[in-house]
Amino acid sequence: MNKRKAIGVFDSGLGGLTVVKEIIKALPNEDIVYLGDTARVPYGTRSKEIVTKFSIEDAKFLLNKNVKCIVIACNTSSAYAGKYLKQTIKIPVFDVIVPAMIDAKSASKRGKIGVIGTRGTIASGAYKVRYKEACPLFVPFIEEGEIESDALRIIVKKYLSSLKGKIDTLIMGCTHYPIIEDLIGKELGKKVILINPGISVSGELKNYLTTNNLLNTGYKKGSLRFFVTDLTERFVKVAEQFLGQKIRKLEEVKI
Amino acid sequence: MNKRKAIGVFDSGLGGLTVVKEIIKALPNEDIVYLGDTARVPYGTRSKEIVTKFSIEDAKFLLNKNVKCIVIACNTSSAYAGKYLKQTIKIPVFDVIVPAMIDAKSASKRGKIGVIGTRGTIASGAYKVRYKEACPLFVPFIEEGEIESDALRIIVKKYLSSLKGKIDTLIMGCTHYPIIEDLIGKELGKKVILINPGISVSGELKNYLTTNNLLNTGYKKGSLRFFVTDLTERFVKVAEQFLGQKIRKLEEVKI
Repeated sequence: MNKRKAIGVFDSGLGGLTVVKEIIKALPNEDIVYLGDTARVPYGTRSKEIVTKFSIEDAKFLLNKNVKCIVIACNTSSAYAGKYLKQTIKIPVFDVIVPAMIDAKSASKRGKIGVIGTRGTIASGAYKVRYKEACPLFVPFIEEGEIESDALRIIVKKYLSSLKGKIDTLIMGCTHYPIIEDLIGKELGKKVILINPGISVSGELKNYLTTNNLLNTGYKKGSLRFFVTDLTERFVKVAEQFLGQKIRKLEEVKI
Repeated sequence: MNKRKAIGVFDSGLGGLTVVKEIIKALPNEDIVYLGDTARVPYGTRSKEIVTKFSIEDAKFLLNKNVKCIVIACNTSSAYAGKYLKQTIKIPVFDVIVPAMIDAKSASKRGKIGVIGTRGTIASGAYKVRYKEACPLFVPFIEEGEIESDALRIIVKKYLSSLKGKIDTLIMGCTHYPIIEDLIGKELGKKVILINPGISVSGELKNYLTTNNLLNTGYKKGSLRFFVTDLTERFVKVAEQFLGQKIRKLEEVKI
């Protein structure tokens, strides 16, 4: 019976939609319930305590939607609350960090792995790699759609200067960053392999559901339901860019 | 007896400390209780409904601290929840918009007044002026301390291009903007008068307290107490830059 249940995904806001996009690619028949905590986004600048509190509330919302598993799409949430949620929640919980680390180690030829993320993710130390850099202005630029601007190019250059020439693999440790993957790739050079944790966790999820006979074996396309804690006019526009498709079922909720 | 009570000030986060700085200059003997809702900052990108909800909770916290009046330091809060709080709260409530408008009208020679602010403040229409521009990336740049960067110069130029040459007076309609007043002033030219709503509201507050015999007539320097809903390591560093002095009494609270 569990096969038919949806996959629950939560994020601090919109960023997790880049993860949903990858889950849909890997598992097109699965129903997905998404919660974006847009009333309290961003998580990346906040403390471990408050991010954990918010993450527990997000996970409880999804549990009440009767999902078969939960994906923590947010890197900061994964970093600060991943372990706690895995230990306390009775259905499988996936974070984006563990699978991204596995993919990075497997992709890297010389073991020179770097990670970029929010201040929270980097400060947490959850990504156990040698080269790390917080890139706090990437999220606002991406959310503002300012991804072609010279200003962003200057910021990209600045943030990545400590990593350039030192790494062979970079984990894009924030859900927003795949949106500017080209810019990051150009700055670091073609030889550096970029790891998108959204792709990594989708692979892990597919393996898990297959191995445990939990795949939705219906032949129709999975349904998508989106919940947000605050709905602004700009939401749909930015969200559709992140997701790469139209958003149809969208609801504002209190959590 | 009310004279001895503190002035309550709230803001979405740190930005309101530029307002506190001006209140201290105008009213050095007053005690101030400040609440920064750092767990849910920023307000400028959120909906009217959620900003109003958060603002009511902020005001209630200050009421419980037994303040003699409340200053809404946040422009977005003033825009969305100012009227509501003034109507429902029994002590005097000051927003930053009304006094800034009065000062702008009085300063402008040709009535060509512009305002810049968050998306929320601009969309609200609370500043009734002809020239308006949302500058959503200013806040992240300022909070990151990236105020000398070429990237910010590009963004300043871009955002102000619709106002340049058209206005004689500009309201800096977000508490963060006075931090980059020089940059804004240089871009618009020396003839454009910049209005800092923090200075405007401090003047109104001083008038009100004087007229109503509510000034704290003690001769000692007023005390400052700061409350935040989330305390991160970076908080004190950025906060002291905004306030222009050391922060001594700081407490994390739930609201």
